[in-house]
Amino acid sequence: MAQRKVLLKVEYDGTSYHGWQSQPQVPTIEGSLRVAATEALGHPVSLAGASRTDRGVHARGQAAAIRTDSPIPTERLPVVLNAHLPEDIRVREAREVAPDFHPRFDAVGKLYRYTYLEREAQSVFLRRYASTLPSWPELEPMKQAARHLLGEHDFRCFQATTDQPPSSTVRRIFSLTVVEQKPFLHLYVLGSAFLFKMVRNIAGTLLEVGQRKRAPASLPELLASRDRRRAGPTAQASGLCLVRVCFSAEDLTRAADVAQGTECFVLD
Amino acid sequence: MAQRKVLLKVEYDGTSYHGWQSQPQVPTIEGSLRVAATEALGHPVSLAGASRTDRGVHARGQAAAIRTDSPIPTERLPVVLNAHLPEDIRVREAREVAPDFHPRFDAVGKLYRYTYLEREAQSVFLRRYASTLPSWPELEPMKQAARHLLGEHDFRCFQATTDQPPSSTVRRIFSLTVVEQKPFLHLYVLGSAFLFKMVRNIAGTLLEVGQRKRAPASLPELLASRDRRRAGPTAQASGLCLVRVCFSAEDLTRAADVAQGTECFVLD
Repeated sequence: MAQRKVLLKVEYDGTSYHGWQSQPQVPTIEGSLRVAATEALGHPVSLAGASRTDRGVHARGQAAAIRTDSPIPTERLPVVLNAHLPEDIRVREAREVAPDFHPRFDAVGKLYRYTYLEREAQSVFLRRYASTLPSWPELEPMKQAARHLLGEHDFRCFQATTDQPPSSTVRRIFSLTVVEQKPFLHLYVLGSAFLFKMVRNIAGTLLEVGQRKRAPASLPELLASRDRRRAGPTAQASGLCLVRVCFSAEDLTRAADVAQGTECFVLD
Repeated sequence: MAQRKVLLKVEYDGTSYHGWQSQPQVPTIEGSLRVAATEALGHPVSLAGASRTDRGVHARGQAAAIRTDSPIPTERLPVVLNAHLPEDIRVREAREVAPDFHPRFDAVGKLYRYTYLEREAQSVFLRRYASTLPSWPELEPMKQAARHLLGEHDFRCFQATTDQPPSSTVRRIFSLTVVEQKPFLHLYVLGSAFLFKMVRNIAGTLLEVGQRKRAPASLPELLASRDRRRAGPTAQASGLCLVRVCFSAEDLTRAADVAQGTECFVLD
C-alpha cells in the first residue's frame, strides 16, 4: 500500500509517565506509542505530537501523526494499536491527512482543562485527575482576573524557568472559563499555543485570586512585569488535561462549547 | 489513656490490592491498614472489618474497628493514620464505639454499587471504576428482574463456588435500584449481608436481562434452582464499590437515599 500520513487522537492517563516526549530509560507516552505502533504495523514508526504534555499531565485528545504503508485500513488502526498499548493509553480515532500535515504546526488552538476538587481529604478515586482544595474559592474575582488574560499578551510571567526560553513568549488566549460544577472547579483555557507550564501557572495564580491573596486588577501589572517570581505557584500536574487540539475554525468553535463544562468531565 | 474501641470509615481504590483480607506475601487493604496503624499508634494493632471485599473491588465506606490506648484523640486519628497510609487508602472518619462492638456482627446492612459505562473503547480515566459496555441495555426488563430479588431468598445461585460454602445461603435484599446516569448505569444493592461474589453475579445476570438474553420472569426459577451454573457471568471487579455499611435503621434510610444516585458517583 502507498505510504500515507495518519492523524491519531489519543487519550491517556499521564500518572505513570514522564510526559509526552520520548526520553531514554523512563516511560513516556510518545515512547509507548512508538513501540506499540512499531509492533502493530511491522515497521519502525516515528511520531509527531501536537503538544509536549508534562509529567503526570493527562490527555483526552492529544493529536499525533504517523507515516505508514501498512495494509491495515486507517479506520481499523485504533483497535489494532490499542491491542498493543498499555491500558492507560488509548487511540480514540485515526484519519488520513495530507503528507505535509504536522500536528504541532497545523494546530490553530489547544484546549486545556485544569480541575480542582473541594474536599477535606484527597479522594482515592480522583487523586490522579484533580487537585484537592480544602475550601471553595471566590469565583467572581477569578472570572474578573481571567478576563485580563484574554487575547494576545506576552505571557512570560507564566513560563516555567527553562534553560532555553523560546524566542517569543507572546501567545493568544481565545477563552478562559471558570466552570463551577461542585465539588469540582474547572478552568478551561483555549489558546493558540502555550509556554512551558503556562496553564498550571495560570491555574495557581487564579486560585490565589479566588483566595483573595491577589487582586483581579493586579493581572495587567503581573503580565507587564514578565517576571515568573511575581506569579502564583505551579498547580500540580494531576489536575491538568489536554482536552482537544484544534485544526480548523470549526474545531475552535466546538472546543469553546466543551469549555462551558460537561456533566462528566473525564469523558468530555 | 484507657483502652477504647474505635470504628473507622475507610475509602480505598482496590485496584492494586488482593482484596480486604490479610494474606501473606501480597498487598491487602487490611494488611496495609494494620501496618499503618501499628506505626502511627506505636503498638500492635489488629483490625476487624465489616466486609471482605474481593480483589480489585473498591470502597467508599468500609467499616473497620481497632482497639487502642493511644493518647491521640479519636477525632485526630484520620489525619494521623492517613499520614502512614498509601494514597489509595484513606481513613475518612473515626468514632469511639462500645467495647463489644463488631463491624461485621453489628452491621444491619451494606450498600454496594455496581457501575457500567457505555463506551466503545475503555476510558483510561474510568477503567478502574466502571465496567465498559459497548451498547446500552434495556432498563425496564432489568428493573422488572430486580424486583424478583427483593426480600429474603436463598441466593445460592449467585454464590461463587467455594470450598466451604457458608451453612446458610439465605440473605435479604432491601432494595435494588437501576439508576440511569448516562453514560453510566449503576446498580445499587442494599442488603443484610452478601454471599461471596453475589453482587457481581447479580450484576452479570441483570445485564443479560437488559441485553434480552434472559427474561425478567425467569428470575424466580433461577433462584429456586440454587444452581450457580444457571446464573449469568461474574461482572468484573473494577465496577464494584462498597458504598456504606449500616449500623442502624437511620443508616439504612440514608443508604436507600444514596441508592437513588448522586451526581458524581465516585464521591457518593
